[in-house]
Amino acid sequence: MGAPPIISLLTDFGLGDTYVGQMKAAILSINPLARIVDLTHEVAPHQVREGAFLLESALPAFPVGTIHVAVVDPGVGSGRAALAVRTPAATFVGPDNGLLSAALPAAARPAVGGAAPAAVVVPVLVVRLQEARYQRPAVAATFHGRDIFGPAAAHLSLGVPPAALGPPVTEMLAFPPFRATRLPDGRLLARVIAVDRFGNLITDCRAGDLPAGRFVVRYRRHAIPGPVRTYAEAAGVAALVGSGGYLELAAPGASAARLLRAERGAEVLIEPEAGGSGT
Amino acid sequence: MGAPPIISLLTDFGLGDTYVGQMKAAILSINPLARIVDLTHEVAPHQVREGAFLLESALPAFPVGTIHVAVVDPGVGSGRAALAVRTPAATFVGPDNGLLSAALPAAARPAVGGAAPAAVVVPVLVVRLQEARYQRPAVAATFHGRDIFGPAAAHLSLGVPPAALGPPVTEMLAFPPFRATRLPDGRLLARVIAVDRFGNLITDCRAGDLPAGRFVVRYRRHAIPGPVRTYAEAAGVAALVGSGGYLELAAPGASAARLLRAERGAEVLIEPEAGGSGT
Amino acid sequence: MGAPPIISLLTDFGLGDTYVGQMKAAILSINPLARIVDLTHEVAPHQVREGAFLLESALPAFPVGTIHVAVVDPGVGSGRAALAVRTPAATFVGPDNGLLSAALPAAARPAVGGAAPAAVVVPVLVVRLQEARYQRPAVAATFHGRDIFGPAAAHLSLGVPPAALGPPVTEMLAFPPFRATRLPDGRLLARVIAVDRFGNLITDCRAGDLPAGRFVVRYRRHAIPGPVRTYAEAAGVAALVGSGGYLELAAPGASAARLLRAERGAEVLIEPEAGGSGT
Repeated sequence: MGAPPIISLLTDFGLGDTYVGQMKAAILSINPLARIVDLTHEVAPHQVREGAFLLESALPAFPVGTIHVAVVDPGVGSGRAALAVRTPAATFVGPDNGLLSAALPAAARPAVGGAAPAAVVVPVLVVRLQEARYQRPAVAATFHGRDIFGPAAAHLSLGVPPAALGPPVTEMLAFPPFRATRLPDGRLLARVIAVDRFGNLITDCRAGDLPAGRFVVRYRRHAIPGPVRTYAEAAGVAALVGSGGYLELAAPGASAARLLRAERGAEVLIEPEAGGSGT
Repeated sequence: MGAPPIISLLTDFGLGDTYVGQMKAAILSINPLARIVDLTHEVAPHQVREGAFLLESALPAFPVGTIHVAVVDPGVGSGRAALAVRTPAATFVGPDNGLLSAALPAAARPAVGGAAPAAVVVPVLVVRLQEARYQRPAVAATFHGRDIFGPAAAHLSLGVPPAALGPPVTEMLAFPPFRATRLPDGRLLARVIAVDRFGNLITDCRAGDLPAGRFVVRYRRHAIPGPVRTYAEAAGVAALVGSGGYLELAAPGASAARLLRAERGAEVLIEPEAGGSGT
Repeated sequence: MGAPPIISLLTDFGLGDTYVGQMKAAILSINPLARIVDLTHEVAPHQVREGAFLLESALPAFPVGTIHVAVVDPGVGSGRAALAVRTPAATFVGPDNGLLSAALPAAARPAVGGAAPAAVVVPVLVVRLQEARYQRPAVAATFHGRDIFGPAAAHLSLGVPPAALGPPVTEMLAFPPFRATRLPDGRLLARVIAVDRFGNLITDCRAGDLPAGRFVVRYRRHAIPGPVRTYAEAAGVAALVGSGGYLELAAPGASAARLLRAERGAEVLIEPEAGGSGT
């Protein structure tokens, strides 16, 4: 048997209220031995896309079979579906608003470029969470984390198959892959998609899309050199590939966000260093 | 046997210091298999009444037999008693300052209206935590969470009966039930008792006390219509019954607290909609 | 057998990003039954000395054999070593920058007075974490918490001996013991080393170093009397020995930090009360 699968939680609930604790209580009421890991509960309120990115970038750290519950859900109680998605790597539980995009391979998601989610045909098993016996007896219209998503994850962690939780669906909302856009002139247009506690600016540019050799990241009047390998070796703001595999702008012992006066949503341009090796 | 009971923690310790971690270490030193759920550690410092409300509104999510440890304790080390309360539904551990009010049925608590706790005769088993062998060897006068309350909960989770922890007491402090006040003219006077991360204003008006049919919540110059069923369907600030069963003022994708410039303690009036169905 | 050892975590990662969750996932990928306790993740970014103090002051709450992982690591990915330290009381895992000072007895640490760490000869087993098979397959240069420290702790919790993780080292960086300095005139010079959520100012003066009988703590124009035994019994700002065994300045129901306009780093002078009992 071994240990039951991990249930990870990612929400915009914050820790100042009791919502996260209630959601955990609902899970443990069903599976008393559930192993719960908080991914974060401080997604900016209602910022579905930021939540989708944070979930996607954290996935590689988790073992196969993890159940990821994600709840950033401004449409709670409205017509939007509640979903469970089963892939070979993991199971995802959350609202049908793009938050679970990471469950789908890039090829199944909308084309790179837009910032809004769009409906796509799903290549994996996706069910709509409708079976009342796998929900709490009284479902509050405003708290599906506690009453629908948490219980679904708990039942899944006990081995209940996704198909038991509700009927399959063929489409779900997904965001385009988090990737920089290639401009006609060959430069990359990337967006700051998260700012971490240290003030590191995390962009949507994947390591594999960066120019070979040295490059320059342009933001307003700033020309930021890269890559460096570690935060410590930068002199002032520098560019490096962060632990999630995305391009970051960072400064040693300081906040790049503050130094550059940049925040989430900022756009940067990436180009090979003039006269660089150009490998 | 099954899993040991959940130990829930609610404090005003915050997460920036190591107090919560030390309290958990004290618990796990006694019961290495304790299952601990953080309800919240961000009760405003010393706000006993807010803590009592948050604990009460979260209770329904927990399974029977849960041990709730609550520590918002400005009188730590002074003469106030340390208590354990055993009810058919749960066990409560914390200071005798009103924080554990939820352990008592509404009928045993002071009359609705006041904001201060008062001594009441207890209809359930309440003991004073005095037995030194169920405390840490050296009790710091300023940290009973680690040295008295946490250890008591850990021993209770191992099956130690409450009566072993100290002598029974017949009275404890309790807040009036969190309920709106009925005014002579029939309107309800409710108070904002918590503001959550989304800026939802949570009042002390229970769903069951609301007028039948449509109603209006008055706050300063604002007339807020209700009820709506979900956050999403509101247009501007609207009133709805939240997931804890209390009236909330909320706005879709925005902070009602900011829109109304209201905060904890604000008073609102609730009246049937003029010309409403009036069932 | 019993339960596996506790793994405690202390970092400056914050809870707004997914770093802590990823680190836990890495640990649970190796030891699915690991028991993890968050000590705090809100050490001020890059404040190694504050982290070292918080770790040291929390140690007494943990059972023998606990594995403490501490990551405040501005030099991540640079030449600084990654260490595991095994003592009779506990095992410590983290960067070689002074953060793990608490693993060493006071006699083995630099002389009291300085604020910078210095290399000392270690009287206990210390190894450099180099064995790739006890790290994640791909180590990011910017996230050793997930890729080196967390996995090392997980393997240690399974019984892997420290010596298997890498070669022994004979020196490591350590801070001077957190102690007040005795001035030539007999007074004690103490520094505020942490400010907690309640605004209590925690100094580096150990209880055992305080004058016998009553004393006065001088900060700017303020003369703060002590000791009181509890927060509640103070009248205005007062001095007391806190739950970690260090002198604190506190005020009942208020923030001493705000009342005194003092913050981390402030220096205070401690002297016997004039005309005091002088026992």
